[in-house]
Amino acid sequence: MRTTLIIGAGGVGRVVVHKCVQNADVFGHIVLASRTLSKCQEIKDELPNADIEVASVDADKTEDVIKLINLCKPDIVINVALPYQDLTIMDACIATKTPYLDTANYEHPDEAKFEYKLQWARDEKFKEAGIMGLLGSGFDPGATNIFCAYAQKHYFDEIHTIDILDCNAGDHGYPFATNFNPEINLREVSSKGRYWENGKWIETEPMEIKMVWDYPEVGPKDSYLLYHEEMESLVKHIKGLKRIRFFMTFGQSYLTHMKCLENVGMLGIEPVEHKGMKIVPIEFLKTLLPDPASLGPRTKGKTNIGIVAEGIKDGKKRKIYIYQVKDHEECYRETNSQGVSYTTGVPAMIGAKLMLKGIWSGKGVFNMEQMDPDPFMDEMNTQGLPWQIKELDTE
Amino acid sequence: MRTTLIIGAGGVGRVVVHKCVQNADVFGHIVLASRTLSKCQEIKDELPNADIEVASVDADKTEDVIKLINLCKPDIVINVALPYQDLTIMDACIATKTPYLDTANYEHPDEAKFEYKLQWARDEKFKEAGIMGLLGSGFDPGATNIFCAYAQKHYFDEIHTIDILDCNAGDHGYPFATNFNPEINLREVSSKGRYWENGKWIETEPMEIKMVWDYPEVGPKDSYLLYHEEMESLVKHIKGLKRIRFFMTFGQSYLTHMKCLENVGMLGIEPVEHKGMKIVPIEFLKTLLPDPASLGPRTKGKTNIGIVAEGIKDGKKRKIYIYQVKDHEECYRETNSQGVSYTTGVPAMIGAKLMLKGIWSGKGVFNMEQMDPDPFMDEMNTQGLPWQIKELDTE
Repeated sequence: MRTTLIIGAGGVGRVVVHKCVQNADVFGHIVLASRTLSKCQEIKDELPNADIEVASVDADKTEDVIKLINLCKPDIVINVALPYQDLTIMDACIATKTPYLDTANYEHPDEAKFEYKLQWARDEKFKEAGIMGLLGSGFDPGATNIFCAYAQKHYFDEIHTIDILDCNAGDHGYPFATNFNPEINLREVSSKGRYWENGKWIETEPMEIKMVWDYPEVGPKDSYLLYHEEMESLVKHIKGLKRIRFFMTFGQSYLTHMKCLENVGMLGIEPVEHKGMKIVPIEFLKTLLPDPASLGPRTKGKTNIGIVAEGIKDGKKRKIYIYQVKDHEECYRETNSQGVSYTTGVPAMIGAKLMLKGIWSGKGVFNMEQMDPDPFMDEMNTQGLPWQIKELDTE
Repeated sequence: MRTTLIIGAGGVGRVVVHKCVQNADVFGHIVLASRTLSKCQEIKDELPNADIEVASVDADKTEDVIKLINLCKPDIVINVALPYQDLTIMDACIATKTPYLDTANYEHPDEAKFEYKLQWARDEKFKEAGIMGLLGSGFDPGATNIFCAYAQKHYFDEIHTIDILDCNAGDHGYPFATNFNPEINLREVSSKGRYWENGKWIETEPMEIKMVWDYPEVGPKDSYLLYHEEMESLVKHIKGLKRIRFFMTFGQSYLTHMKCLENVGMLGIEPVEHKGMKIVPIEFLKTLLPDPASLGPRTKGKTNIGIVAEGIKDGKKRKIYIYQVKDHEECYRETNSQGVSYTTGVPAMIGAKLMLKGIWSGKGVFNMEQMDPDPFMDEMNTQGLPWQIKELDTE
């Protein structure tokens, strides 16, 4: 029987465990590890009939991960820990010749770089170890890369432009709360935007470019151009591409709160002297805000993430929209997690499933769009992420 | 030579000292006292040629204030300390038979009551001691009460309605900062509004009633109905009054910041457990915000505070607007303080001057509108607060 090691017991980890248990014939025995054993145990308790073992691991330390891998000898490591830990876990997989999958690219704890460089640099070592490493098998990156590959395979001779459109229209009923660490939310909003056109990256001011997109089953929403990591690999792998952009929805109220908090210094990451104590403002903000884990049962509404590709097929212009709509409450009923965790965790399970079954294979480090999209798209339809395709008018 | 004891060395205290020094023939020797001696010394150092002595006093303790009064034997105590300390200082004045003046009514440290009850209750004791106590000789209360008394004396047989209109259009150039303790600012914005009509107080939701008023030399500004303390005495002393309201301007950005900070819990006054420390959110906010004292040199723009009274004169309807416009930068050049402190401190000096000269006199506790407004109005014109009167159309 196979063994699957899942590292990370946050919201995404919970979804991955639930979905792997639903596909137990493929994943076999599950070992769930994280720094905090009680978080693993809590997830295990939700699935009393499943074959789950829990373990504690410090994923910042390659040696610790190697020890755990040697102990449970997994057929694959699904990394849904923090992005800071991608490299230590990859190195443990190289050392133990264990296939590897993650959902978000490596990020240095001190500087938000969001780039694949250090992970791609491990390609040779993965080849030498004879193992496959699949990078970014979440929703975006992940499903969005697959949507692009699928469009290229079936709908276009040449894709000229891609817009990735990410909408979370969930409402948790609080005036302000963040799904993730507020620090990561802040980076999204306060970082410069970037898109790629005619072979060059073009930088924008933070939130400079805004459009209103009418998301099916959700409605029109303010969408802002951001940099997002899947563009880095897509410009490499989608041939003939002239432009790619990424848009994410942010509500006016969310942006106003972020701006006001920034204005008063509450998003600061440096300690501030206060009555003889040293307080990091953003950490204190995190203490004040509702626990992200508490949002799940309260969140209503839908996510809609997709891509619009435009290009040429049989000499004619063509424009298609591939998207996936997911209801937060439905996600919670199935996995005790809201839609943002669900839409990231399910593609992680699917990628791992295709690797374990040998449907996707290779030696080295791969991005999603380098794989055959068809089996992934089929799995999405049956694993809770059914998608739609629309032909749009070209002007 | 007379001796004047000034208690309080904040922004208003600084203005009072500067203006008393400008009127040294009346005020004589000045003793400036506060809890923090260095704050007194700083003000003294700004006026090297003036006859100023500094002292430290704990104004929360009547005994402490009595000791200081016995030491310097002042002809008047000008109380510009915290509103929490009105009663202890009044009691010290009773015990030592020393005339008393303040600028804001007593406020209990734990409950924002804003009422004259406990101060008026000392009327008998002031009478027995044979001294005068003048309450609320700032701008509002203070000059606004005098404007009402002046309107009644010269412009009306009967005043039916009064609107007090308080606009601070100062811009300190920060996205968000508060002139005072943010806790006091918060109370203004989040307390229920209240106005008086036909003999009854009518309560409104916080910021429920808004109007746009076109302030001369400033322009049209959003103005919100609040409760403000001078109304409590004016309904007693302006005979025939049918309605009185108070409006204060708040910019949209200020309100948005307050709302967002409230939403995330940053205005909370209860300690929050954070990494083993106990932090009171609003106190931490105060630490993050610019020091109110630093706003003075940066603040541009004007204040405009006035009253609109409507009623009957010689059987005909009449409506007049008495207002005072002050430029923040001009205030700073003259007294090292911005307009909010200036417009409060100058009327305190004027009230004390009229008492010391015996132009205003009496035994007991008085509100401003019980005095003859004419000498006060004359002093305003020469002491830096010139006012205007406009006839408005009646409909």
